[in-house]
Amino acid sequence: MSEELSEILENAESAIADRNSDLTRSLCEGLHPADLAELYEDQDAGTRRFLVDTLGSEAFTEVLAQIPDTLVEETLDQFQPDEQREMLEAIPDDDLVDILQDVSESKRKDFIELLDEEQQDNTRTLLRYGEDTAGGRMTTQVARIRETMSVKDAIDHLRPDLESTETMARIFVVDENERLIGKIRLRDLAFNPWDTLIRDVLTEDDQSILASADQEEAANMLSRYDLVLLPVVDESNRLLGVITADDAIEIIEEESTEDMEKAAGISGEQSEESYLNTALYTHFRRRAGWLLILALLAILSGFVMMRFEQTLIDVYLLSLFLPMVVAAGGNTGGQASTMVIRAMALGELDREDTGRVIWKELRLGILLGGLLAVFIGIVAVFGPPAFGFSLPGNISFAKFGLTVAIALGAQVATSTVIGAMLPIGARAIKLDPAVIAAPAITTVVDVSGMVIYFTVARSILSL
Amino acid sequence: MSEELSEILENAESAIADRNSDLTRSLCEGLHPADLAELYEDQDAGTRRFLVDTLGSEAFTEVLAQIPDTLVEETLDQFQPDEQREMLEAIPDDDLVDILQDVSESKRKDFIELLDEEQQDNTRTLLRYGEDTAGGRMTTQVARIRETMSVKDAIDHLRPDLESTETMARIFVVDENERLIGKIRLRDLAFNPWDTLIRDVLTEDDQSILASADQEEAANMLSRYDLVLLPVVDESNRLLGVITADDAIEIIEEESTEDMEKAAGISGEQSEESYLNTALYTHFRRRAGWLLILALLAILSGFVMMRFEQTLIDVYLLSLFLPMVVAAGGNTGGQASTMVIRAMALGELDREDTGRVIWKELRLGILLGGLLAVFIGIVAVFGPPAFGFSLPGNISFAKFGLTVAIALGAQVATSTVIGAMLPIGARAIKLDPAVIAAPAITTVVDVSGMVIYFTVARSILSL
Repeated sequence: MSEELSEILENAESAIADRNSDLTRSLCEGLHPADLAELYEDQDAGTRRFLVDTLGSEAFTEVLAQIPDTLVEETLDQFQPDEQREMLEAIPDDDLVDILQDVSESKRKDFIELLDEEQQDNTRTLLRYGEDTAGGRMTTQVARIRETMSVKDAIDHLRPDLESTETMARIFVVDENERLIGKIRLRDLAFNPWDTLIRDVLTEDDQSILASADQEEAANMLSRYDLVLLPVVDESNRLLGVITADDAIEIIEEESTEDMEKAAGISGEQSEESYLNTALYTHFRRRAGWLLILALLAILSGFVMMRFEQTLIDVYLLSLFLPMVVAAGGNTGGQASTMVIRAMALGELDREDTGRVIWKELRLGILLGGLLAVFIGIVAVFGPPAFGFSLPGNISFAKFGLTVAIALGAQVATSTVIGAMLPIGARAIKLDPAVIAAPAITTVVDVSGMVIYFTVARSILSL
Repeated sequence: MSEELSEILENAESAIADRNSDLTRSLCEGLHPADLAELYEDQDAGTRRFLVDTLGSEAFTEVLAQIPDTLVEETLDQFQPDEQREMLEAIPDDDLVDILQDVSESKRKDFIELLDEEQQDNTRTLLRYGEDTAGGRMTTQVARIRETMSVKDAIDHLRPDLESTETMARIFVVDENERLIGKIRLRDLAFNPWDTLIRDVLTEDDQSILASADQEEAANMLSRYDLVLLPVVDESNRLLGVITADDAIEIIEEESTEDMEKAAGISGEQSEESYLNTALYTHFRRRAGWLLILALLAILSGFVMMRFEQTLIDVYLLSLFLPMVVAAGGNTGGQASTMVIRAMALGELDREDTGRVIWKELRLGILLGGLLAVFIGIVAVFGPPAFGFSLPGNISFAKFGLTVAIALGAQVATSTVIGAMLPIGARAIKLDPAVIAAPAITTVVDVSGMVIYFTVARSILSL
């Protein structure tokens, strides 16, 4: 954020606190809707009311699409029906659909009825697509022309919708059944003689996506092929709308946040509000579920520990390395699952790659386990005597070090493979791989780590 | 990936395996450079050579910018100097700089000298900006005009560079010192009478970024303000170039991947290669560092456990809940750090918000700790007797349950606050917050959890 902007926002905050309408208006007038939305979102209900009254419907039209779900209805409700109509009609159709998805069902019906008939139809069609599909994200306000037009025809054809068309960077060429044939760039219109035929400048376009496809797939295509716009079509290749690069940015940010949160065992939809503006209860609800489940599962590790209590009492030095062996599994399993989950999210791993992934992680697990085994094994042989710890008479520190090394190596190798396999397994049974949270993997390999450690100890130390 | 594309790629794979040049050429001709790059990247060195020989320099020009760092030099080396010149001259300057950053220093010098003088100067200037800055990411191939021009003048002025200008969606208006005044949209040229003055259609532009700013800041601005292009300027507001929305997508994907990897204790730069194509040794190197450090730190937990060995022997049922109390801290600390790190990455948390974050996480920690304490406390009172476990005569299950509950509550509350504070602390000492990996937090709260558990047990159970 630039210093200038910070200063304006600070001054606006005090003007708002003083309920100084004129100053508030003059300070907020120049703000970008995104900044105004953040300012608005940070206020309490009374102050939000003051802002709505002071700035009016025009200022809030673009703000509406930028504020969190929970504030949309409250904000719209403070305007008169004719103001609401003006606001809703001025919002691009993809944002309008987002907004309508955020309000209660009865309100949605009321709001849609405020629109003119064409917009009503269009909105109802868009609302039919799932929120997370390409269709649910697209705008229908796309520039479309016929291949039989000349440059002059195309300019005349596009002129009436000049301001309502979301983007003109690409103009799509369709046949008489609205089927997508190709595209031209706006510069092809601007820089060619007016009698040039569209047919002669168009590029055939094979990059498009079905309206029913997942929004993440659309974002990945825009990213992979460095597209400005991705056309959205139906099963008959009829052009329905476009997804823009800034939609792709939003989709990718949302999906990344969700994946990170899932990986940390935070459940539910990512909150649209910022961290600080999300209610305490919402944070609580999203975190409590996994914590409870994992706490119950972790009691399994306790059972294993009790089962091997005597081993621990016989060679109490085993406690020194027990937490380390167990934790190393969680760490390495978490690394492996993160790599695999991320590669899946970026579309790098197909189902046929499963064997290659497991083979790679198996070798990696053996390498990492080997490294740790050698390193910590040496620590286990020479460390404890240096600190004055002792072992029962019949056990040498060499044997003890060997125990720690073998257990650690085995734990790291198995945990790496388990960490890689769990997300692959999740996908195979149609679960989101990211839902296999690192804490879940840690809990699983905590149990296996204890079993490995004590079993190796008993066998090598003949307990 | 569409079925059609998968089929072409499959057929191409077999044509390549058969060393069938004609079939390979005809199948690869229609491929998008991004798809051809992936196909190329998946082959062994001999096959890559075959592809280079078969498809030639023209096909590889656009592919160069899409293949991993490690293959760029090898690929370029297979062409003759005059082919290299043609390839390098045809690549947009931001991609060219990326490519030159990937080759050895001596080669870089050779390649730059192949370019014409203007491109040499331009490239050397761009190479001076850091790889992760706005300047290092921008393209200088930006459409720029003067405010005194008419629409006709502007069209004539822009026409010679029509094909080399990366994007014309926004055309920037500069004064005689190249200082940024504003911008127009290409549609303002296409749809206005030729004698319209640029001055009358321009929008003053206050969205720009310094060349020295971090690329992540540039991506966040493009995302926040839904921009198609973000102009990059120097300290005197002179227009140097632009960053495009598809650059922003790339930056956001890279940074998200890096943050996720860091959060899992995977160190070093994110590999440009895909997961499967990254060498085993590279994976190994990136994961081994943290694993070793954390393994050594985890021995601290072992020290604590040994120190309290007698407590464990006195009330051996304490083992049943020890792993759970310890793990709950790691889980809740990991959740808190993930939320805070992500909020920081999205630019939501300023330095002044530190107090609010800690206050929020403290209350959350107490709520989550309270919930788990009540729930697992009840399990601890009624569970063990149901399974036939017993306690030393002087200790009741009620007291035992109280011990588990208090220890768990305290562990969860402190871990939540620690998890939130570590990334904030990291930023305060100018470290990347994301580097405070979840495994590191787990290791820290493993130690504190053991201390809390045994201290609470000793005091409540009077051991």
